[in-house]
This record gives sequence, C-alpha cells and structure tokens, in this order.
Amino acid sequence: MEHLVIGICGGTGSGKTTLAKRIFKKFKEDSVHLSMDCYYKDNAHLSFEERSKINYDHPNAFDSDLLISHIKDLKEDKSIMHPTYDFTNHRRGDKWEQIDSKKIIIVEGILLFENKALVDLLDVKIFVDTDADVRIIRRILRDVKDRGRTLDSVVNQYLTTVKPMHERFVEPSKRVADVIVPEGGHNNVAVDMIIGTIRKKIED
Amino acid sequence: MEHLVIGICGGTGSGKTTLAKRIFKKFKEDSVHLSMDCYYKDNAHLSFEERSKINYDHPNAFDSDLLISHIKDLKEDKSIMHPTYDFTNHRRGDKWEQIDSKKIIIVEGILLFENKALVDLLDVKIFVDTDADVRIIRRILRDVKDRGRTLDSVVNQYLTTVKPMHERFVEPSKRVADVIVPEGGHNNVAVDMIIGTIRKKIED
Repeated sequence: MEHLVIGICGGTGSGKTTLAKRIFKKFKEDSVHLSMDCYYKDNAHLSFEERSKINYDHPNAFDSDLLISHIKDLKEDKSIMHPTYDFTNHRRGDKWEQIDSKKIIIVEGILLFENKALVDLLDVKIFVDTDADVRIIRRILRDVKDRGRTLDSVVNQYLTTVKPMHERFVEPSKRVADVIVPEGGHNNVAVDMIIGTIRKKIED
Repeated sequence: MEHLVIGICGGTGSGKTTLAKRIFKKFKEDSVHLSMDCYYKDNAHLSFEERSKINYDHPNAFDSDLLISHIKDLKEDKSIMHPTYDFTNHRRGDKWEQIDSKKIIIVEGILLFENKALVDLLDVKIFVDTDADVRIIRRILRDVKDRGRTLDSVVNQYLTTVKPMHERFVEPSKRVADVIVPEGGHNNVAVDMIIGTIRKKIED
C-alpha cells in the first residue's frame, strides 16, 4: 500500500491537535493518528521527584527512536503497539494500543520538525503558526480548567521551559515546513486545502 | 459562473510571480492572471522627474480602485480592459488588453493584502514567505542582469523604499493569509497542494 505521511508541528496551544483531529475525523477509515505526546521516554528508573524535574519541552525527553520505528513499520504495512503516557505520574502508561497501518499516517508534535530522521519520513510538513499570546492563553485555560493545575504552576513552567524551548527548537524548525498554517485547526480555508490534497492523493 | 479568487501576496523576490504563473499554466483555459504591478497609477500629469521620485512601494502608488473594480467585474462574468505599465517611463502603457472572465481569478501583488477592500474579494489568501536575504539576491540578479540597472541603484532603492515599505506594509499583511508558503513557486509540495485545492473547487 502507498502511504502519505503528514507531519503537523507547532508550539503549545497553536491548534495543531485540532488540525490533526479534523484531518483524522475526515479520513477515519483510511488514517492513523500518532501524537508525539505519547512518545515521552518512560524513565521508570527515576524517582517521581527526579522525573518531575525533567525538561519535557526538550527533544531529549522524547523516545524519538520508537516513534521513528513506528512510522517506518506503518509505512511497511505493519501494525504497531502505540504507547500511552501518564502525565500525572510522568510515566509511560501500562496500556499499549494496537494500531494497524492505514493509507494516511498523521503524526503530530511540538518537536516533530526538530528531528532530521523524523522529518525525512514526512511527505507533507505542516507548521501551525499562532501568536505566542494566543498560545499561552489557550494553554492556561486548558491546564487550569481541564487539568486542575494552578495558574502559578502553569505560568512558571511556561516561562522556565516551554517558552525557551519553543524559541530554541520549535520556532526554528518552522523552516522545514512545506506550508505554514496560521491558527491551525481553526483555519477553515487551510483545513479544506489540506483535506483536498489528501483526498486527491488517496484517490490517485 | 462560480468564481474562485486566489490572492497571492509576498515581498519582492519572494517567488509569488513564479507561484502565480505555475497555477495559471496549470489552469490556462480556466483562469485569468492579474498582476498588481500593472495597476500602478498613471501620473501622466507629473513630469518624468516627479514620477521618478514617487515611492512605488507605498500603497498610494497603486490604482487599487481600478483593480477592485476589475475583480468585481470578472466575478460578475464581465470582461475587463487590463492596463499595462511602462516601467522605464513610469507611466501606464498605451496598450490595454481585453481579458474575459474565467472560473479562476489569480491576483498577485506585494501590497494585495494591505488593502481591506481587496482582501474581502479573495477566497484563498496565500502569502509567500521567503527570507529577506534570498529576496534581495533575487532582486539584484533580476534588476542588474535582466533590466540593465546598476547595482548601486538597486541597492539604494531597496534600502530607501523597498525594505522600509516591506516592513511597514507587506510583512504585517501576512496576518490575513490563509496559508503561508515558504519559497513560493519553488515549493513543490505547496504548489501541488494549491493546485489540488483549485482542481477540487472547479470540479465541484
């Protein structure tokens, strides 16, 4: 089977997950959706305190080799065992989910374009670009309202790791993008464009 | 007839004309191509010396009302008389070219997204984003080799009007874009995406 691997990258709160989900929903039968968030390293050998201190916005926090091998497997029509991640305990989850290969492989993550080996596997590279103030507003609302975190902890994490890592790794990785989509999944013209492109590819 | 108006904006040397031409070539039978460059004001009432001093990178240099009325006419299936421009004499050319309306209307120009009334006429807004150093290299090569201008005059014009006007009007207008295309017509993935979108629209 011929595959189309679509990479979606962008900072926290940029709208990349919304975009990935809208594409996935449109091609449910024909697509798989891998989120880099599930590919954090396990770090079971560390204590909870040590794990809490890890910089989760740095490329080293990710098990990129596993993600790379999974994309390669899917491209060879093989099924994969997709990891889950327990954000409360900073550990890989116990559950692994079998995912069978499909024509369209959607991969999404903040540091996806930072890794050359990952980038080389992507046929279409979409960078979701949203102003930093809008992104932090979305992150605050999500983390405080949905994840029960304190405003202070969200702001502190943002300023100490999220922002500097964004500027060091995410923002420069925009250069590898084929297209840049302002506002991501909230941008209907761009979503239509991407969906049209995929439809054409899978019909060919 | 239903029309699709595609606006392509971006700085000098960004690759927007290459992109517009690649789209136009693909849909020759079904498209018209309007370049904002042909819509400079005539200024016949001024002397050559006075015309030479005009800032041609400022929105006021363009006859935007004529361009707006032409796009509106084409959308109403009417033919237009497209102006030409004589860059040597800084005057509108004597020749006007009849253009009949087509399904796809491609409009291209550095200041296209700066004008709200123009933007409101566009169905798809593509901003071509290319680094300033690459853009000035392209402009120098074009103006010195193809247009016989001196290196000094190209650099002088760039620093006195092109660059400041770009930063004041072109760069901020990126915000209205639906998609941002790095490198414009030289970006094959994006060109395929845009062509796919147009094909889908005209087939619907």
